[in-house]
Amino acid sequence: MKKRILLTIAYDGTSYFGWQKQKDKSIKTVQREIENALGQLFKCDIECEGSSRTDKGVHALGQRAVIEVDTTIPTSKIPIAAYNFMPDDITIVEAEDVNDDFNVRFDVKNKTYEYKILNDKIRNPLLRNFTEFIKGNLDIISMEEAGSYICGTHDFKSFCATGSSVKSTVRTVYYIKVKRENNIVTILINGNGFLYNMVRIIAGTIVDAGLGKFPPEHVKDILDSLDRTKAGKTLGPHGLTLKKIYY
Amino acid sequence: MKKRILLTIAYDGTSYFGWQKQKDKSIKTVQREIENALGQLFKCDIECEGSSRTDKGVHALGQRAVIEVDTTIPTSKIPIAAYNFMPDDITIVEAEDVNDDFNVRFDVKNKTYEYKILNDKIRNPLLRNFTEFIKGNLDIISMEEAGSYICGTHDFKSFCATGSSVKSTVRTVYYIKVKRENNIVTILINGNGFLYNMVRIIAGTIVDAGLGKFPPEHVKDILDSLDRTKAGKTLGPHGLTLKKIYY
Repeated sequence: MKKRILLTIAYDGTSYFGWQKQKDKSIKTVQREIENALGQLFKCDIECEGSSRTDKGVHALGQRAVIEVDTTIPTSKIPIAAYNFMPDDITIVEAEDVNDDFNVRFDVKNKTYEYKILNDKIRNPLLRNFTEFIKGNLDIISMEEAGSYICGTHDFKSFCATGSSVKSTVRTVYYIKVKRENNIVTILINGNGFLYNMVRIIAGTIVDAGLGKFPPEHVKDILDSLDRTKAGKTLGPHGLTLKKIYY
Repeated sequence: MKKRILLTIAYDGTSYFGWQKQKDKSIKTVQREIENALGQLFKCDIECEGSSRTDKGVHALGQRAVIEVDTTIPTSKIPIAAYNFMPDDITIVEAEDVNDDFNVRFDVKNKTYEYKILNDKIRNPLLRNFTEFIKGNLDIISMEEAGSYICGTHDFKSFCATGSSVKSTVRTVYYIKVKRENNIVTILINGNGFLYNMVRIIAGTIVDAGLGKFPPEHVKDILDSLDRTKAGKTLGPHGLTLKKIYY
């Protein structure tokens, strides 16, 4: 009997052209790799629908995706059973059964992303694929204050890559936390949904506040302007990790 | 005028066949990459003598190496000047002038290595190149106790890869520290010198004690046996980082 299974997936996005599979099969994507691996495990074609379309170079510890499969492998054993078929940089962390009416995209309550920065005088090659390097000293208090103005329900047009076509640019950010551990600054951001590049633009704007390029309260003006050019730059994908999706 | 310069070098060893350059130039080594990069910067042939011959896949945050070069670039600016010539996974962290009588290998007082373990039920693909994965729960107290018996001046023949030819297998380990931060267990080990694979065999032995395979005091018997087969297995190179070399 077919069952629907919700997977939790972790991946190092460094060598992938994002989550979403492309028509051109030669373009390496996380979704296609997983479908190929699970196809080998289950010996049938597998379609794997993801919750978040993470971009090229973005990582995940808690991506979610649903598959439908007729298998005798107990659901909880799928992560272990799949292990040998998966590439090194993708791991199925958990598997659970879900009902027919579960929707991996539309049933999302909120998601947490993490943006990591190496804030030091020198680069660290061991962290190059997992942190953005910022040389100037970041003031955490200013970053937190800047983040506080982003929290809440707003039209986030200023924080959305130009050219993206969505019906509404209104989203709710529930919290932004900024912390420093030695030379690593982490921005945690939780919200009900994110526009294209929104987390990386928010991170870039908070970093500008942390560098003293403008006072934290200027973020209110950026939001009100509904103008992408007023916000900070889009930080690199390598600092970004999709941490958790809540249903 | 020629000057002798001591470099501090960080690298992600994942894609290298170790530090030491090979006769076969197609074998990618850290030393050769640095010599090539600095050759382009200084527009002359550069020889770069390293302090530690780290193995394939082993990382460094504090490798040291000496070059001799006739340049007008101020020594302290070399890390920045070299940056654009270096591959992404190697960074010159610091540069300082040294005297003619300084010897990068024989003047070493002691070195610190770090061995990192992901101690969890599931793998994390983001950490796969920088941690050894150990599933069973590691008892830190037992690991520290096992490490305490390794400290001191001993014949470390049991902790040396078989087939290596050194005059003496006597070394002094000054300290071993074991700490846990969430699911990451770190073994810090400082000594006056290390035999071939010694740190990775010590880590493997301490892990066995942490898994309860033998009581910590059994490490004394392993040392006394002078028999490689009595010690734990050689853990993978990806968990190992050469952290600092002291002169």
